[in-house]
Amino acid sequence: MRALVKTTAAPGLTWTTWPEPTPGPNDVVVKIAATSLCGTDAHIYRWDDWARSRIQPPRIIGHELCGEVVETGPDVTLVQKGDYVAAESHITCGQCFQCRTGQAHVCKNYRILGIDRDGSFAEYVCLPQSVLWKTSREIPPEFACLQEPLGNAVDAALAEGVTGRTVLITGCGPTGLFAAAVARASGAATIIASDVSGYRLDLAKQVGADHVLNASSETPESMAAAIRTITGGEGVDASLEMSGAPAGLHQAFSAVKNGGRVTLFGIPTGPMTCDVANEIIFKGIRVYGITGRRLFSTWYRLAGLFKAGLNIKPIVTHTFPMADYAKGFDLIQTGRCGKVVLFP
Amino acid sequence: MRALVKTTAAPGLTWTTWPEPTPGPNDVVVKIAATSLCGTDAHIYRWDDWARSRIQPPRIIGHELCGEVVETGPDVTLVQKGDYVAAESHITCGQCFQCRTGQAHVCKNYRILGIDRDGSFAEYVCLPQSVLWKTSREIPPEFACLQEPLGNAVDAALAEGVTGRTVLITGCGPTGLFAAAVARASGAATIIASDVSGYRLDLAKQVGADHVLNASSETPESMAAAIRTITGGEGVDASLEMSGAPAGLHQAFSAVKNGGRVTLFGIPTGPMTCDVANEIIFKGIRVYGITGRRLFSTWYRLAGLFKAGLNIKPIVTHTFPMADYAKGFDLIQTGRCGKVVLFP
Amino acid sequence: MRALVKTTAAPGLTWTTWPEPTPGPNDVVVKIAATSLCGTDAHIYRWDDWARSRIQPPRIIGHELCGEVVETGPDVTLVQKGDYVAAESHITCGQCFQCRTGQAHVCKNYRILGIDRDGSFAEYVCLPQSVLWKTSREIPPEFACLQEPLGNAVDAALAEGVTGRTVLITGCGPTGLFAAAVARASGAATIIASDVSGYRLDLAKQVGADHVLNASSETPESMAAAIRTITGGEGVDASLEMSGAPAGLHQAFSAVKNGGRVTLFGIPTGPMTCDVANEIIFKGIRVYGITGRRLFSTWYRLAGLFKAGLNIKPIVTHTFPMADYAKGFDLIQTGRCGKVVLFP
Amino acid sequence: MRALVKTTAAPGLTWTTWPEPTPGPNDVVVKIAATSLCGTDAHIYRWDDWARSRIQPPRIIGHELCGEVVETGPDVTLVQKGDYVAAESHITCGQCFQCRTGQAHVCKNYRILGIDRDGSFAEYVCLPQSVLWKTSREIPPEFACLQEPLGNAVDAALAEGVTGRTVLITGCGPTGLFAAAVARASGAATIIASDVSGYRLDLAKQVGADHVLNASSETPESMAAAIRTITGGEGVDASLEMSGAPAGLHQAFSAVKNGGRVTLFGIPTGPMTCDVANEIIFKGIRVYGITGRRLFSTWYRLAGLFKAGLNIKPIVTHTFPMADYAKGFDLIQTGRCGKVVLFP
Repeated sequence: MRALVKTTAAPGLTWTTWPEPTPGPNDVVVKIAATSLCGTDAHIYRWDDWARSRIQPPRIIGHELCGEVVETGPDVTLVQKGDYVAAESHITCGQCFQCRTGQAHVCKNYRILGIDRDGSFAEYVCLPQSVLWKTSREIPPEFACLQEPLGNAVDAALAEGVTGRTVLITGCGPTGLFAAAVARASGAATIIASDVSGYRLDLAKQVGADHVLNASSETPESMAAAIRTITGGEGVDASLEMSGAPAGLHQAFSAVKNGGRVTLFGIPTGPMTCDVANEIIFKGIRVYGITGRRLFSTWYRLAGLFKAGLNIKPIVTHTFPMADYAKGFDLIQTGRCGKVVLFP
Repeated sequence: MRALVKTTAAPGLTWTTWPEPTPGPNDVVVKIAATSLCGTDAHIYRWDDWARSRIQPPRIIGHELCGEVVETGPDVTLVQKGDYVAAESHITCGQCFQCRTGQAHVCKNYRILGIDRDGSFAEYVCLPQSVLWKTSREIPPEFACLQEPLGNAVDAALAEGVTGRTVLITGCGPTGLFAAAVARASGAATIIASDVSGYRLDLAKQVGADHVLNASSETPESMAAAIRTITGGEGVDASLEMSGAPAGLHQAFSAVKNGGRVTLFGIPTGPMTCDVANEIIFKGIRVYGITGRRLFSTWYRLAGLFKAGLNIKPIVTHTFPMADYAKGFDLIQTGRCGKVVLFP
Repeated sequence: MRALVKTTAAPGLTWTTWPEPTPGPNDVVVKIAATSLCGTDAHIYRWDDWARSRIQPPRIIGHELCGEVVETGPDVTLVQKGDYVAAESHITCGQCFQCRTGQAHVCKNYRILGIDRDGSFAEYVCLPQSVLWKTSREIPPEFACLQEPLGNAVDAALAEGVTGRTVLITGCGPTGLFAAAVARASGAATIIASDVSGYRLDLAKQVGADHVLNASSETPESMAAAIRTITGGEGVDASLEMSGAPAGLHQAFSAVKNGGRVTLFGIPTGPMTCDVANEIIFKGIRVYGITGRRLFSTWYRLAGLFKAGLNIKPIVTHTFPMADYAKGFDLIQTGRCGKVVLFP
Repeated sequence: MRALVKTTAAPGLTWTTWPEPTPGPNDVVVKIAATSLCGTDAHIYRWDDWARSRIQPPRIIGHELCGEVVETGPDVTLVQKGDYVAAESHITCGQCFQCRTGQAHVCKNYRILGIDRDGSFAEYVCLPQSVLWKTSREIPPEFACLQEPLGNAVDAALAEGVTGRTVLITGCGPTGLFAAAVARASGAATIIASDVSGYRLDLAKQVGADHVLNASSETPESMAAAIRTITGGEGVDASLEMSGAPAGLHQAFSAVKNGGRVTLFGIPTGPMTCDVANEIIFKGIRVYGITGRRLFSTWYRLAGLFKAGLNIKPIVTHTFPMADYAKGFDLIQTGRCGKVVLFP
């Protein structure tokens, strides 16, 4: 088959011919219909420090996918040949405290598709049946492959209900944009989005943000004042921190009202200074660290959100044949894109 | 002033001249902009057993209202003259366990507007400041006066989040219709509504029900089968029982999936037979009794739902001048109406 | 090996020689250290209608157990030879909505040990590794085998926290007694227990009930009055219905305060009359149907409760060699026992 | 009356004669039975920067109290002359979002007893009825006056249930010690406490800590290793940060298991460095900022904990006549005390 492979410990990837996978008794082979680029893939492509410490070539990368089941191992009962599926990218151990208590998304021993085993940037991928997610044919492949990162956004946005509540989203990368779309579909009262990119704030508006704040042309103080005005002096009920930038975190804490909640999804690149007393304690807030997606309650809920009219179309800004992967990685570097989807 | 008064212990009401109220130190006088008919008012109008045991004439009835503050007692600080307000109809004691622990909606000693003190079917009503709710001028009076019953629907629908979930609503009287509208605005995946009235099921469709089931032309078995088909064999995540009819309750329990939830709002007229083992225990479900509205978190959330696009317009089927109140009560008797709103 | 087998479709059991089980790749053979009698076993022993419709002889019954792992299939990684274990009795499918969303205790397809496959009234039992629960050696076998029914009590008592709260337990069979012990260890403020048996109420006192009410010598009204007096007129925060008797259910609903919660665990023998309006709706309460045990959060929590000093010793009233099983079933028939434990 | 007054803007207090308070219509005069020293009082006594910026002399300080109602204004209905009461120290506005939604503990406009109005270090104090808490006579004054800071500990410990769970408490000042006592009474499985003071760790053991770690003789690494050993490699279910020291916060985050929770109560003296990615996000934890006490659910729960056997006796290490207040403040300075109680 054709596959996009990190063949050696160096920057770049190779679009090449690679052996097709053979499923074990509990495995399934999926013919990829669409697969999307994640920031993680860009790290591996550029071969930065993190990638060097984590990836052992050769490795087919990619972990956001959808496709059709074309082969099943003898013990597979969850899906059948011909099923249209997406997949959870975290392959959990099933035996740790977290896995045994319904918190497999923070499994202590999970392995990741496209990092610890061969991934989805190929014509076929082999997956254990336990990670498969049957998907409605009404969702086209360029959206269906996005369910994995959408799940992050669902968990970030819906850690508590947003229906009828005011929401701030700091950071409008793809997952921040997804979170805005999820909040919109969930009946949020008012959605405020901030970012340093006018391009991305424009996308935020297209998926339902009521107000956008451009952090490259405003100060923290002017943005805080704007949020106070928008919320009638109350602050927001929920801040979704999707940027990982210290300024984004401070804005998230500053904007939330006493007794509100903050979800932290964006990953700061290192330690940062926090005013824990004023940002968390005196406000009496709840802070949720968000990682992965709840298996599989988040997936079920996302399926329901698609039925409810979740609009992610504006976020899929670019699609390419898989052979043109370099165009996608170049776009990500510029920041002038939402999600980039590849077709094999 | 003109007022609609139960003057004597007999059926009917009298549209008459009545003394204007004088506010105490903590009271506010509101000039009524709109006020709506509730089933409770119809009981009092007909003077049934319940009404006879509960109401002491003379009494101005009515408890769903909006209007403008025209006079304030000296200790009033929450609102000002000219404010546009609605009101919570339960006047709570503030001192019982429930009131002191954030559950004033189940206060042990609450008194009800239009029952225990003079109500809103008049040009003016006097209210303690603690029940007032400042309302956005963007919400016209015929909708703003409905916030009290809408609050019931919010609590019934959102006892747990419905975003991305399947919802059954048994009973499409006004509060059931409101619940459908709330579920729609909250991003429910699929809304199924049942009732015995085709007229009301048609309204349910207009506010967002995806599927309607007419209990007058179907059997419990055929409706259960339809729900199984619609939900892919799973049953619904949430049943909202809004009818009070035993058949509605059994349908609500039958349709909910294992581990789901049922809210009970419709009031059965007397004891009924329940299969507690099969309807509740073996299913491992959560059942919530819903009465009143949470003070005032429900009101805040409802304000947010209006911003999110809550559509209740189709439910306000009739409006009359207050003098034509009899037309409204006649309509309620026929069941061929949603909400009936009176203007003074 | 020696085993206690329902050999034919008739009352009674046979203590006989039976083939030892052979484990599959994911299975484990456990040498039974202790196993306890459940009401379900008594139904099968007596061969009542339910048992006749459910059990296909020959079948080794029993599902409450502990013991030592003596053999493991090649794919077993969760436990090792020599481990001291108990077991969840519900063998869940792992693939239904409930299993995939952390609610396997209400799996739609679960099979039960000692009913759908051979159980624990034997020298050895074969179990899939997924149901095993490693147990501290500090818990002696006559207590360790009780973790399965204790789990029911944990879920009934702790559906919401009882720390600092008043609790009513209606029905002091073994699971009701366990619930009293759990509430005591959890810091309940006041525990009130009711039953028709003075013998069982005496056990309730021994495990921590502060007040006991004998339903055979009191009226519903006098018990309600006693509960009001004990709770200073408030009613209880939580009612745990553990009897399945209609009088117990009505007492549970009557005693709970507005805004409180009721858990229903005792299984009524058939439909019963409920006053849904007054018992649930107007009180604004939460009702939880309890079945099975949460896999495996309940088991972890129970392990913690043992460390916290959970006292179930008075509840284990009788122990016998397995060959004397008939004595145990006779005792259960009289009601003058707590838990009966058998040793092989 | 005699009172302890900050008479001028300078260090120290004056034990002097002062006019007795006169109650307004909604006020109550309480004859102080006991009142305790808080860290806040020590700040005011020393007249540090915070105190200088916040306190306007003359002011009677003190906000932890119990006593007897000796006079009531005409509108008072919640208590009567002769009632034994304690008091919430936060006098909330009743009208902000937080107050109207059951979150008055984070009221935006609250005023504090002994800071914004005259407090409890006196023979009598005047209080609005809304902050009064009727207390059982079974709780002696030296414990009853501690309910206010105990409430902080209840909210910190019970932000989620601790029954059957492992708990780390970093910081064994009085509120940390209270939290240990609360966790013990609530059925925590295992309680680990850390502090820099052997004296305070000894008190922690007396109120129920199973393991203590002395941060002055151990390294962060050795303490982390000890916690891993104690918890079988899992980490704790809940970390209660009660020290405000950066090392305490890092230990709290480090020790908590994936998917666990951390409550932050100790107030850092300024901004600090946090590794948000590794301490919060990747662990998928919940973090709660704790301030004040929930009005009045926390007070009710605390009353229940006293009935459940809450043991705070070892924490009340010193009692003095109010005239000897200087001895109390000196003790606090040394750290060799738990709670110091004054009697007028």
